[in-house]
Amino acid sequence: MSVNIKSAATPKGFLFSTVEAAVKKPGRKDLAMIYSEKECIAAGMFTTSSVKAAPVKLDMKLIKSGSGRAIVVNSGNANACTGPQGMRDAVETAGLVAGLKGINRNSIYVCSTGVIGTPMPMERIRAAASGLVEGIGKSTMEDVAAAIMTTDTFHKVISVRKKIGGAMVTITGVCKGAGMIRPDMATMLCFITTDASIERMALDTALRQAVARSFNRITIDGDMSTNDTVLVLANGMAGNGMIKLKSESYKIFAGALAEIAYGLSEMIVKDGEGATKLVEVEVRNAKNERDAERGAFAVANSLLVKTAIYGNDANWGRIMAAAGYSNARFNPEKTDIFFNKVHVVKKGVMNNKDREATAEIKSKKLKITVDLQAWNASAKVLTCDLTENYIRINAEYRT
Amino acid sequence: MSVNIKSAATPKGFLFSTVEAAVKKPGRKDLAMIYSEKECIAAGMFTTSSVKAAPVKLDMKLIKSGSGRAIVVNSGNANACTGPQGMRDAVETAGLVAGLKGINRNSIYVCSTGVIGTPMPMERIRAAASGLVEGIGKSTMEDVAAAIMTTDTFHKVISVRKKIGGAMVTITGVCKGAGMIRPDMATMLCFITTDASIERMALDTALRQAVARSFNRITIDGDMSTNDTVLVLANGMAGNGMIKLKSESYKIFAGALAEIAYGLSEMIVKDGEGATKLVEVEVRNAKNERDAERGAFAVANSLLVKTAIYGNDANWGRIMAAAGYSNARFNPEKTDIFFNKVHVVKKGVMNNKDREATAEIKSKKLKITVDLQAWNASAKVLTCDLTENYIRINAEYRT
Repeated sequence: MSVNIKSAATPKGFLFSTVEAAVKKPGRKDLAMIYSEKECIAAGMFTTSSVKAAPVKLDMKLIKSGSGRAIVVNSGNANACTGPQGMRDAVETAGLVAGLKGINRNSIYVCSTGVIGTPMPMERIRAAASGLVEGIGKSTMEDVAAAIMTTDTFHKVISVRKKIGGAMVTITGVCKGAGMIRPDMATMLCFITTDASIERMALDTALRQAVARSFNRITIDGDMSTNDTVLVLANGMAGNGMIKLKSESYKIFAGALAEIAYGLSEMIVKDGEGATKLVEVEVRNAKNERDAERGAFAVANSLLVKTAIYGNDANWGRIMAAAGYSNARFNPEKTDIFFNKVHVVKKGVMNNKDREATAEIKSKKLKITVDLQAWNASAKVLTCDLTENYIRINAEYRT
Repeated sequence: MSVNIKSAATPKGFLFSTVEAAVKKPGRKDLAMIYSEKECIAAGMFTTSSVKAAPVKLDMKLIKSGSGRAIVVNSGNANACTGPQGMRDAVETAGLVAGLKGINRNSIYVCSTGVIGTPMPMERIRAAASGLVEGIGKSTMEDVAAAIMTTDTFHKVISVRKKIGGAMVTITGVCKGAGMIRPDMATMLCFITTDASIERMALDTALRQAVARSFNRITIDGDMSTNDTVLVLANGMAGNGMIKLKSESYKIFAGALAEIAYGLSEMIVKDGEGATKLVEVEVRNAKNERDAERGAFAVANSLLVKTAIYGNDANWGRIMAAAGYSNARFNPEKTDIFFNKVHVVKKGVMNNKDREATAEIKSKKLKITVDLQAWNASAKVLTCDLTENYIRINAEYRT
């Protein structure tokens, strides 16, 4: 699978830079910067793991200000489990760039992704810093997306333009992530820039809603990372009337943000390590959304379900079994299962559609619907199949 | 890996039978019976999934009597998600054998393992029933263990003999299970027979304690099945003084039962689908046993940890990351990690033992210790690595 977006629209006043710092090894650009000509309203969400990388801890402090100017990000090293030196390194990185560019150190967010537990090669970051600052404006959003890739096989960018409050507003998101994704955003970095003029509370609320039904509803392997970060910077340069919570323009903005987050999360699942199929699991008519989500995640995370899909085996019994241990409340004898539109299970037993089901399961984009037929809450989770290539990629990651 | 136990000791008064019923396909004995000359005290534990196979529902009713005489078990078909017909089939199976042998239908437990969602081939069970009853006494415990195998690569039997209450007591367990195992005993059938004389409450308590730290502390792939069952039958024919709760003889018996359950669960992990290594994960000095268990399970279930072990990559960062999202309370900056005896992580950062760690991770039997250095509770979980062969086995299971 590959997704190519040649030139995403860029929000006004945002500039980009990418350089080769050889963080892990030489040969590619692995240090990037997103820079706004004006100070921005900022919102962020971070990994809920109790093992947080140093830059995550730093950014969680900075985000309290609700503002920001730039993001500096490297791939190749997560700067996680690196002790007090890790935090000094993250702070130094921000300081280097701030000094060279003449901006406030506390308006620079630092992000890292890569191997855990290895100290940051600061001598190489120091050497690359001036090139990074001098390069501002010479790279594109796509270059940033490419620089932050680790096991990703394609770079991930989406742009949306909407007329809001009398002006054309652009929102653009880049992200990286291909494995270790699951509820609460695992090994996932996402940077969204927009020229919208928006109140801080409105931006924060829109982000939380967008993430809840996108990055927090995808799963590749059930793991979660130490570095997950979603940051949004809004510099107000579009000239729209200020977007306030609960307004009409908020709805349009929040919808566009949700669209970007969902689109990027779909790209992450498409790029699931070793994946050959994109799978949407929907649980319908559950007692409440939480139960529906639990059921959908149990199915989406089940190795037996994922390997069956990979093997083109319409083994719905594994889906029932996964729903059964999910803790979602339901009566198996009322439950229906569909593969795309094929009605495979009726009231908990097979519906003699084996041939049709086997044809459907070969789809590159498969939809599994589990209809509990009891209440009326639903949830959708995106996942992929599990293949020998996932094992190979992850068995050999550091070598 | 293979485990060969040529002749396990058999408790007095237990007889076995195995026949070919061609449940899934012909070519092997796939229907077995365990029979006691005398009525037994019985205890059982079952899957906690809300999708339970018909025989599980039947056995859960029967076990309320606290007694039993025989177990009839087939491989090749789980009789799960088979609706009301599934229950009729399980009841009919017990009735057939009861009629032919002239015993009470309600003293016969029925167990099934295999594919979910396919109706039981009752015409073949009916045809095989008389041979099964006639064959009582002509097979061994090992034959039963072989007949209940699905993806298992070796049969699993353990015997322990102890002098209890003035007599030699024998306890023998057989089980099957190689994938889909996790807390709450997944796709696992275990039958334990003993000639001990024991009170019902004592047998039940000993079983619950044994399972809590054995079958409920192993994980292959995080899945859980619709059919998991552990049954113990005690016929009292050893002639020992009745074992009562809290007595000295209870301690000996419970210890022996725990030894069997742990030994069998170790065999299941050794036989994990596609596994090349047996891995014990211990979390030490946690706030309480539940936290320790959570942490150990998160590490043991992490696909990234399991693939790293397979790839001989001493990637301790993935262990920290898994502990981090486990919800166990701890301070990463106080945490130590050991691979066997090599001290890999000291207070949350690497201890420069990469070469030694890489040597250890090649062990066929690896012990990972995560020492939280905070409180004093511990828990151990057994698991295995995750390989391309796991994918192959499970992608092609039904074909």
